Amino acid sequence: MHQLLPFADRLETAVRRCHNPVLVGLDPRRESLPSGFLAEGGDVGAEETAAAYGRFCRGVIDVVAPLVPAVKPQAAFFEQLGPAGMAVLAEVIRYAQQKELLVIFDGKRNDIGSTATAYADGLLGSDGQSVWGADALTVSPYLGDDSLQPFVDVAAKRAAGIFVLVKTSNPGGRMLQDLLAEGRPLYRHVAEYVEQQAAQTAGRCGYGLVGAVVGATYPAQLAELRAAMPHTWFLVPGFGSQGGTAADVAAAFDAEGRGAVVNNSRGIIFAHRSKPYSQRYGDRGWQGAIEAATRDMIDQLRSTTPAGKL
Amino acid sequence: MHQLLPFADRLETAVRRCHNPVLVGLDPRRESLPSGFLAEGGDVGAEETAAAYGRFCRGVIDVVAPLVPAVKPQAAFFEQLGPAGMAVLAEVIRYAQQKELLVIFDGKRNDIGSTATAYADGLLGSDGQSVWGADALTVSPYLGDDSLQPFVDVAAKRAAGIFVLVKTSNPGGRMLQDLLAEGRPLYRHVAEYVEQQAAQTAGRCGYGLVGAVVGATYPAQLAELRAAMPHTWFLVPGFGSQGGTAADVAAAFDAEGRGAVVNNSRGIIFAHRSKPYSQRYGDRGWQGAIEAATRDMIDQLRSTTPAGKL
Repeated sequence: MHQLLPFADRLETAVRRCHNPVLVGLDPRRESLPSGFLAEGGDVGAEETAAAYGRFCRGVIDVVAPLVPAVKPQAAFFEQLGPAGMAVLAEVIRYAQQKELLVIFDGKRNDIGSTATAYADGLLGSDGQSVWGADALTVSPYLGDDSLQPFVDVAAKRAAGIFVLVKTSNPGGRMLQDLLAEGRPLYRHVAEYVEQQAAQTAGRCGYGLVGAVVGATYPAQLAELRAAMPHTWFLVPGFGSQGGTAADVAAAFDAEGRGAVVNNSRGIIFAHRSKPYSQRYGDRGWQGAIEAATRDMIDQLRSTTPAGKL
Repeated sequence: MHQLLPFADRLETAVRRCHNPVLVGLDPRRESLPSGFLAEGGDVGAEETAAAYGRFCRGVIDVVAPLVPAVKPQAAFFEQLGPAGMAVLAEVIRYAQQKELLVIFDGKRNDIGSTATAYADGLLGSDGQSVWGADALTVSPYLGDDSLQPFVDVAAKRAAGIFVLVKTSNPGGRMLQDLLAEGRPLYRHVAEYVEQQAAQTAGRCGYGLVGAVVGATYPAQLAELRAAMPHTWFLVPGFGSQGGTAADVAAAFDAEGRGAVVNNSRGIIFAHRSKPYSQRYGDRGWQGAIEAATRDMIDQLRSTTPAGKL
């Protein structure tokens, strides 16, 4: 096993190598797979669906691996299929890494103390350091600092990273995240913790191993948080299907175009189902649709955001 | 498939049948298993460890099934072992239900919109309604109401339940949960949402399908929340190893001794490692230690809390 660079530096290197910050979300959904992946009509079992998810995700990875720095498998869609889905998730992670993609496991996991350590130990660490082998993991902050610390500690040992939910892309996120506490919204309290941990773990690139999830659907907050969190990588969901545009995410980057990866899940992996790609590629051309959608997103981010400097 | 009663009613019936509200946490840990479960020395792989967790958890279930209403497998310790661990987790859930135990899947899952639905669909619903088959699931609230609603909706359709983190048992929980927002701590905002949903889904027993996680380590908040949440089942962690006593949890119950289940994980399943059980039973008598620790906890709750009325 060779010595891994810190996650923040590996992410920066990958983004620079690809000249774009696109993160492709692997969110397989039974009802959206191109035709031919699952038998039509009748009940299809979890095992068979899981196998189809595996074939589909490998097909997505084959297309995007030469183009983008990282993928983000969404654990929920694999867990939905039970143990068979989880086995395929592990295979998909390995396959992506064989293709030189960084893998951010989107599990929004957390728990207290030694239980948080169990999640971190199992999930964090590529190159055979952990059983799942993810380069990074999304983590939920409601349980507080002593629940986040085990993830930070394990990530530091294994050159891995975490992305803590700060300001999420969904409308209901405001219920707790926007509540004013001690003169500022709750998400700023989480942001302070994250930035402090990021600063303490900053690598060569100036960013640390603790990142933040900040939705594309709140551009003002993206700008505010970018200014407040100079050592923090942003994982920006909400682009595309959820309504975020390239202009909306421009504020997520630093002046050199670094510091953020922008996720797109359905808009890329199921491009064959939506205009304009559906017309040009259709179901059979699903991989062509994925490539076109990925290249279009890259172009939009290059022309509209500081990521064009990469 | 017979018609299931609502989860709240099934939980109340189970608690009444057992005359106690003890919830046994299934938190298998490699280093705490009785001798003989894993080969001594040398590297033991994930598959072999997972198989040992399965044997151990079935052994725990054999002892506690005649005594208590429910068990709570902690997903983290199974996920730590990768897909092999998840396969064993599914088997453990099935085994517990064959022994008439209710199963609360402790995953603290959550995500937005249709991703939350995927978790709920896969996890919630016993009697063959879902692939994991849990009767209930723990859920984290940071993402807000529109992330919780899919769990409520799926739970309602499948006679299942959820327990939302409100006031957790760990010291760091205060970082966010105790922040004052609009004149009250953040956890009260979550509590209001939970109680509203619980009231709207109240079954025959007067409790609803949405419950709350409220730590045994904060007795004053337990009392305050019991008064504020008359339709909400409490899942109370923190008893035993974390310092919570029977006196501390007394306030979690309503006047008739209903409305709360009290979890104990290590204090029961690894009783063979701690006094007084270690002296009397030792490693070989681990099942005797589990039975004694369970009966002692039942007795403490009966003599010290309103649960004695059950």
